[in-house]
Amino acid sequence: MIKVTLIGAGNVAQHLISAFQSQSDIEIVQVFSRNTTIAIPDFDAQKMVHSYAELKEADVYLIAVSDDAIATVSEQLPFSNRLVVHTSGAAPLESLSSKNRRGVFYPLQTFTKGKKVSFKSIPLCLEAISVPDFEILKRLAQSISGSIHSINSEQRKALHVAAVFVNNFTNHLYAIGQNICAEHHVSFDVLKPLIIETANKIMDLSPSEAQTGPAKRNDFSTIQSHEAFLKNANQNNLYKTLTQSIQNHGKEL
Amino acid sequence: MIKVTLIGAGNVAQHLISAFQSQSDIEIVQVFSRNTTIAIPDFDAQKMVHSYAELKEADVYLIAVSDDAIATVSEQLPFSNRLVVHTSGAAPLESLSSKNRRGVFYPLQTFTKGKKVSFKSIPLCLEAISVPDFEILKRLAQSISGSIHSINSEQRKALHVAAVFVNNFTNHLYAIGQNICAEHHVSFDVLKPLIIETANKIMDLSPSEAQTGPAKRNDFSTIQSHEAFLKNANQNNLYKTLTQSIQNHGKEL
Repeated sequence: MIKVTLIGAGNVAQHLISAFQSQSDIEIVQVFSRNTTIAIPDFDAQKMVHSYAELKEADVYLIAVSDDAIATVSEQLPFSNRLVVHTSGAAPLESLSSKNRRGVFYPLQTFTKGKKVSFKSIPLCLEAISVPDFEILKRLAQSISGSIHSINSEQRKALHVAAVFVNNFTNHLYAIGQNICAEHHVSFDVLKPLIIETANKIMDLSPSEAQTGPAKRNDFSTIQSHEAFLKNANQNNLYKTLTQSIQNHGKEL
Repeated sequence: MIKVTLIGAGNVAQHLISAFQSQSDIEIVQVFSRNTTIAIPDFDAQKMVHSYAELKEADVYLIAVSDDAIATVSEQLPFSNRLVVHTSGAAPLESLSSKNRRGVFYPLQTFTKGKKVSFKSIPLCLEAISVPDFEILKRLAQSISGSIHSINSEQRKALHVAAVFVNNFTNHLYAIGQNICAEHHVSFDVLKPLIIETANKIMDLSPSEAQTGPAKRNDFSTIQSHEAFLKNANQNNLYKTLTQSIQNHGKEL
């Protein structure tokens, strides 16, 4: 049995609570939230606390708050030498107060409020200073996911930046695609099967092998015709920048 | 029964042949290829022809060749007033010789050689000059797909440009993500569930609603830290350009 307390009750915290609750070998001791009116679906309100002084003993304290607040929150905890970990992709382990044993428990996924996710395939990126602490995090992680990774702070930062490219920036390209469709009165739905297949394709093939299109095959007449078609300055600039990046790709590596 | 002849035996042609062959209401009359040594898996070699003079009567001739070759190939066909359509997203209907009845049969999907696709959910974008010709294309399309769209040449061009964003450019962002992982000795596999979820998310939510990340929430300290992290000039430039595009998004529309 691992006893866990969550510090924070936002989006990531709620997804973790929901995953932990379905495991018989995990006990959620308490959930701390500054917000006294918050109610977490299907979670025992008796275990919600709003002051650090009420925090009981637990094996792991998981801090799931905004990156900016990690240092302050970890400093305010009224105990020392316990295992306190944050759940952020961007914050280094050192952002946690050194008065406790520090670690990281970073679920690498995009969480949508209200949309239930299966943790089974969500990669959990773990870091701890001591081997016994890493083992505690590993046991906790293994109870909810089949994808556990030992990732140091430098690697986690790389993953976080890479995630911005494959998640935030990719989603923005979807938004640009939707705009182009709207401007020309075509349903964006027509592109959805392509979007899914584009993602599925690289499950088996490396993205470099999967690359197709006018930029890749140096089809200048199509590139010119697309650039002439894109009157919107921002769309046009993105088209040029990404086309050039594809054409340079491989040369620089 | 619709009688179809394919002109071209490349990637798209082979996927169409495979889809048509499984339909009892479609007869593939012939497949034309300049390449005399080509063999199409599971296709009757007797029906392969290599000279235009051998082409028999069919209800529809589907030209599946490179965009540059459409005009020449359609001009060389030794008959007139038959229904001849191309399968390209980028070429206008007018690229076809006007000696035949013209149309477009454009499957909007990325086809990988050797990877079987189910046509059932692939959007087929159809265009024809006359209503009866459109109806022939529609019957042909409906026999293999449940997603049929009437799309004129201007709309198809918009879709094609949008497809470059959501397919070619998105795949390139995956490649950048893979490079960043490789440079920092982390497995790219860790990002794959995120990639899939990013695509799945916009099946229900519009991309604008789904947008998250430091650029969206104007988190300047994370943006600065990511930019400092990206030493590769091309990655750094892409990061800046896409971040700025997300920050401007919505303002210009």
